[in-house]
Parts: sequence; C-alpha cells; structure tokens
Amino acid sequence: MAQRFLFEVGLCQFVHRTNKLLFGRKFNISATMPLPIFFRQHCFSHAAMASESPLKKKNKVIGDELAYFDALFPQLVKELTDDVSSPEILDAVNWFREVYISRVPHGKKNRGLAVVKSYRCLVKPEELTEENLTIARVLGWCVELLQAYFLVSDDIMDSSETRRGRPCWYKKENVGSIAINDAIYLETCIYALLKKYLRGRPCYIDIIDLFHETTSRTVHGQCLDVCTASPVEKRVNLSRFTTQRYSAIVKYKTAFYSFHLPVALALHLAGICDEASHSIAQKILLEMGHFFQVQDDFLDCYGDPAVTGKIGSDIEDNKCSWLVVQALAKATAEQKQMLQNDYGKTDAACLARVKDLYEELQLKQAYADYEEQSYRTIISLIEHECTTLPRQIFLDFAHMIYKREK
Amino acid sequence: MAQRFLFEVGLCQFVHRTNKLLFGRKFNISATMPLPIFFRQHCFSHAAMASESPLKKKNKVIGDELAYFDALFPQLVKELTDDVSSPEILDAVNWFREVYISRVPHGKKNRGLAVVKSYRCLVKPEELTEENLTIARVLGWCVELLQAYFLVSDDIMDSSETRRGRPCWYKKENVGSIAINDAIYLETCIYALLKKYLRGRPCYIDIIDLFHETTSRTVHGQCLDVCTASPVEKRVNLSRFTTQRYSAIVKYKTAFYSFHLPVALALHLAGICDEASHSIAQKILLEMGHFFQVQDDFLDCYGDPAVTGKIGSDIEDNKCSWLVVQALAKATAEQKQMLQNDYGKTDAACLARVKDLYEELQLKQAYADYEEQSYRTIISLIEHECTTLPRQIFLDFAHMIYKREK
Repeated sequence: MAQRFLFEVGLCQFVHRTNKLLFGRKFNISATMPLPIFFRQHCFSHAAMASESPLKKKNKVIGDELAYFDALFPQLVKELTDDVSSPEILDAVNWFREVYISRVPHGKKNRGLAVVKSYRCLVKPEELTEENLTIARVLGWCVELLQAYFLVSDDIMDSSETRRGRPCWYKKENVGSIAINDAIYLETCIYALLKKYLRGRPCYIDIIDLFHETTSRTVHGQCLDVCTASPVEKRVNLSRFTTQRYSAIVKYKTAFYSFHLPVALALHLAGICDEASHSIAQKILLEMGHFFQVQDDFLDCYGDPAVTGKIGSDIEDNKCSWLVVQALAKATAEQKQMLQNDYGKTDAACLARVKDLYEELQLKQAYADYEEQSYRTIISLIEHECTTLPRQIFLDFAHMIYKREK
Repeated sequence: MAQRFLFEVGLCQFVHRTNKLLFGRKFNISATMPLPIFFRQHCFSHAAMASESPLKKKNKVIGDELAYFDALFPQLVKELTDDVSSPEILDAVNWFREVYISRVPHGKKNRGLAVVKSYRCLVKPEELTEENLTIARVLGWCVELLQAYFLVSDDIMDSSETRRGRPCWYKKENVGSIAINDAIYLETCIYALLKKYLRGRPCYIDIIDLFHETTSRTVHGQCLDVCTASPVEKRVNLSRFTTQRYSAIVKYKTAFYSFHLPVALALHLAGICDEASHSIAQKILLEMGHFFQVQDDFLDCYGDPAVTGKIGSDIEDNKCSWLVVQALAKATAEQKQMLQNDYGKTDAACLARVKDLYEELQLKQAYADYEEQSYRTIISLIEHECTTLPRQIFLDFAHMIYKREK
C-alpha cells in the first residue's frame, strides 16, 4: 500500500513536471530540481488548477487519440484476414485471426500511439488529413505488431508464463511451439499493411528499410541478452555483467524498436529525412530507452504483477539486469561471492537471499537517484540539442515513461 | 541396393530425357512417352555419346555456376558479420556468424542456383556482366537464407532430430530455444543483403515485396500443415486428409518459396515485370512445386536417410502426406479403420502396420505412375503455354527435381 501511495505521489509530481515541460509556463524548469523539492513546491497546487489545466485538455487529446487508434484495429483485422480470394487456406486465416486479436491490442500501446502523436507534432495542421492520420495510425499498429512478434517469440525463449496479465501464447492449449509460426505471421502483417497503405508514397522504401534494420538490431540485442544470461561455458559468470554490456543489451534489445522506431517512422511519414534530424532524435530516444529498460528491470523485481501483467524472473533467469549490475558495483568481495552462489537459481532461498542483498545495498534508493539523474540528462538533451525538431515529441515520450508502474 | 540401382537407372534415363528437352534434337519428345519405353529406346546409347554430349557441357556450366555461387558465400558472411562499427555487440555477431556458416550453405542449393540459371536464360549475353551475375547470386543466397530461416524454425515446431545429415540447430548444445532468434537473424540477413546490393535499382521494391509475400504464403502453408496434423479437437481425424487440403498445404508451404520465388526474382532482376509472364511462370512452377512435395513425402517414407540427410517421421507426426491421402483414397472401410487406429502414433508396431498397408495398396507404383503423369503435365504446360519466356528456365528446374533421391 505504502509503495502504491508513493507511486501515486510520484505520478502526481510527474504530471506536474510534464505539465510544465509540455506547456512551458508557470513553473521554473525542473530538470535541475530534484523531484522531492519540486513535489514540495508544487504538488498541492495541482488539484486546484486541474479542472482548467492544459494537461487535462492534453490528456483528452491523448484519450481521443487512443480511441481513434483502437477504432482502427478491427478494420485492420478485417483487411488482413478477410481475403476470400484464397478459400483453400481459410483454416489458417481463421487461426491467424485469433492470434492477431489475442496478441496485438492488449498492451499499453505507447509505442503505437507515439507514432501518431509525433506525427501530429511534425506536420502543419492542413496536412493532418484523415488519410494521413490513418496512415500514421497504421504505422503505429505496425510498431505494435513488431512488439507482438518479439513478445510471442521471446516468451518461448525465456520460458515465460504470463504476458499482459494472460498466459503467454505458446502456453495456451493447442498452441505450443506452433507459436513460432504465429510470431512470424505477425511480422508478415507489418509488411502487408505497409504495402497496402504506403506503396507508392516516397517514404515507402525508407520505412520498410527502417523496420528491417530495427528488427536486425533487436535480434542482436536479444542474442546478447540470452548469451549473457546463459554463457556458453554453462555456469553463472557474473563478470559478464558490466555496465557496458548492460548498455549494449538495452540499446539493441529495447531502445531501438521501442523508442527510436516510432519517432523515426513519424519523421519519414512527415517527409523529414535529413540525417541531422534523425541523428538527434535517435540520441535522445536511445537515452530514454535506456532509462525505460532500467525501470523495467526495477519493476521485474519490485513491480506489482497485478499491475505489470507479468511475473518477474530476472534473478532466477540469470539476467543481466540493472539491479544485479548495480549490486555488483556496490558489493563487497563476500557479497559478490554470495551473488555468485545464489544468482540464477530457481531455489526460493537463493532468490530470497539475492533480494535481501538488494535491500542491504539500498538498490531502491539507487534506482530513485538514477531516475532523477536520467530525467535531468534527458531534459537537458532536449533543451540543448533539439533545435530543429519540436521538443514536444520527446516530452510526450518522457510523459509516458517516467514514474510508470507497468 | 536394388532400390539404389533403380534410382541410378532412373537418373540415367532422366538425364537423357532432359538432354532431349534441353537441347531439342536427336530424340522424339518424351512428354507423351512413358519412362520405361523411353528408357528401353535410348538409355544404352547414352554412354557412347557422353564424352561429346551437350549435356556434359551443360553440366560443366552448372558445376561452374555452383563453384561461383559457393565462392560468393564467404564474402557475404564477411560483409554481414564484419561490421566493426558496433564492437559492443561483437559477442552477438560472433554467435550469428556460426549460425550463418552452420545453417545456410549445406543444402543442395537448387533454389539459389535456380535464380542464377534463370537469370542467365533471360538476359542478352552483354547484360551478363560480373556485377549483374553477382547480384543474381546474392539473390540466390537470399533464397537459401529464406529456406534456412524456415528450416531452423520448422525443425523446432516439428521436434525434428536431424537436418541435412547433421543435428537440427536447436538440438545443438548451448542452443535450444534461442534458435528462434537465430532463425529471425537469418531472415534479417536477406534484407541486409538486398539493401546492400539492390538499393537504388528499379527492382528493389518489387523484390522486397516478393520476399514478404512469399514469407506470408509460406507461413499460411505451415499453419495449414500443422493444423491439419494436430487438429484442435486433439485426435487423429483422417477426414481432413483430402486431396484439396493436400494441394493447398503444398502450394503454400513449399511451392511458392521453392519454385515460384527463384524464377520470379530472376524475372524482376531482368526487368521483366509484366503480369502475363509472371502468371505463366507461376502456373508452371506451382505445378512443379506440387510434384516436388509429393516426391518429398515419398522420400520421407522410402528415401535413404543417408542420402536425404533426414529421418522421415510423417506417419508418426500425423502429417497430411501424399501417401496417406492416396492410401485413404484406395482403402477399404476396414483398412481406413486400421489407419484411423495406427496413423499418428509413435509406437513401432503401429508404424509397421501403416507401412504394410502402403505396400498392400501398392503406393510405390502409385507414386511411379504419378511421377509419369506429373512429368507429362509439366512438359505439356511448358510446350503449350510458355510462349514468351525461354522454356529452358523451366526445363532446368525439371532437370533438378525429377528422379531426385534427396
């Protein structure tokens, strides 16, 4: 309960901060101000102004966008699975319809929405036609499809049990390892949609190349992740768990597809193809992606499964998590030996000892400090380096991730 | 031994037939002539003329092409895995190099070679520059990569033991389910190579679309195959094993990527994009693909694992194989009941009873008859419908598949 309360306080505080950042008035910039001070100064004034706040309007726009985004989904399902020109494969089409409906639309959809929101920031109002917005939403769904493709595959590789609060796809009766084919199907939907909606537009090739490149990077990250967790020499080898290795895994496995991809797609759709714009966007977004994964690692251990929708198992799975990298950096020789013995084991006593050590090393506080520092770095990057692109794109993203609970 | 001898006789006979078809002289057309008659008429004259035969020259060209094709492989490995711009992911790159070398170049490479051979037939001699031939070979390797992607994935889904005479990739120590990620890596290589070698050419988009579409069709075929073998109602249901269902599985799972794709790629590279040419090519190639899979099903039961490189298990796996479809068509009510009881079981006695029934129903003869009929159909298609494209493309393909042993 206490933790939940702290999260809610944090959320309120974050909302304020974002409010300031999004609408650029009323408050002094908080990037250099630690969260607790900011909280003391501003939190209680929030309730009074909420009814009129630009944030409320902003949230309404976001809510509306989610409604539009969701409304497109059944149409895309229909387009992808109503192809009666091949009745001979009807059984496969019907099976895939279930895969599609069951696996694609149940996440937070932040990645998908980010495409549309970024696109809205990038073009002139007269370019926000229904056709262009539909294409932006289709691209958003393509990012969600890529995510679903990775999740269905990763869950098999990681032997996971649940995902988004429901059993993993491969765990369902009558599914099993055929889930690999279902995952590939989800990937093919990306290119079927791109062809249908973008073929003929100048950005078609760039967008296809971007999806391919992003997939390649993610696959490299996944390989690094698994190789680090399960080294060839078949024993726990904590010396691999360095900050450098952690950064590489996170960048390749998560940051490119979750952060860089949605904004890069919006840039291409808006006709912005210059290297400078893409380069600065990538720099900011990869930084955010790094923080996002640190947070994910934190939630794996300390999040509420009822909220996150998954049961964390990084310790048992011998994962190169942010927490163990921090623990190793802070641990004494004796504590390192203990980690060496207990990390990567499914035994409950081992797990409890690792978690106790995390407490002892005050990793919750280390995380809170890291969040502060990361937030400041990102805001500073946006302020000082983002000179040609609308800053709001990146602030919107920050809005979504700082102080998230799931 | 007897079987081997028969195969060799058949091969010799086939070589003759192809010789006639390829070089269009000396013999009367054999499309309407059953193989045994053709054999009696011509087989013994073959040895005498072999030293001077156009076939020998042709085989030399094919052999040379294989040498060129193979010679390109190490260069592609180097290009795909020597990217020192990202030293942080070196461990992943090293792992993938092994996947690439271990999984891609050990097949028959018929699909890959078919791209180059078809391309050679399609363009004028002056267009056969080193650059164009290299691109044709790269496209050939892309087809081999697609094949490797499917095989690594399918072997996990089918719980197979061996592939191309070696253990399946996922069966190797230190691999397991991470093989799913390795399979995806192989797919990403296709698009990395296409981008490197084709970006900027007018055919780039068409070729990418073709790979996507082919992948989608294959995934539908794989789904149909697995759903038919393991119906949702969880019991053997032989009523699903119809000729129509068999044709759909084969067309989608095998024929598009193994037969249509290589030639369609060559057509695009040669700048031939008209629908009529693609349509007739597809018609002939899907017909050949159907025969190829029938043959594959036959070899699953009757082939020599030392030659095919894999241990057949279609009966135990409850697969909708050509043999069981034929058996059901010929069986009495009692025999059908026996199949219903014994098919899809791993028990050795069940397997033996199914094989005995196949003998009783003379399925080997049915296969020989089918091969004859299929050969005639294909030659007739090539003769009567292939008016604008060089027939040799299709004859080369026939050359590769009729009377193959592996």
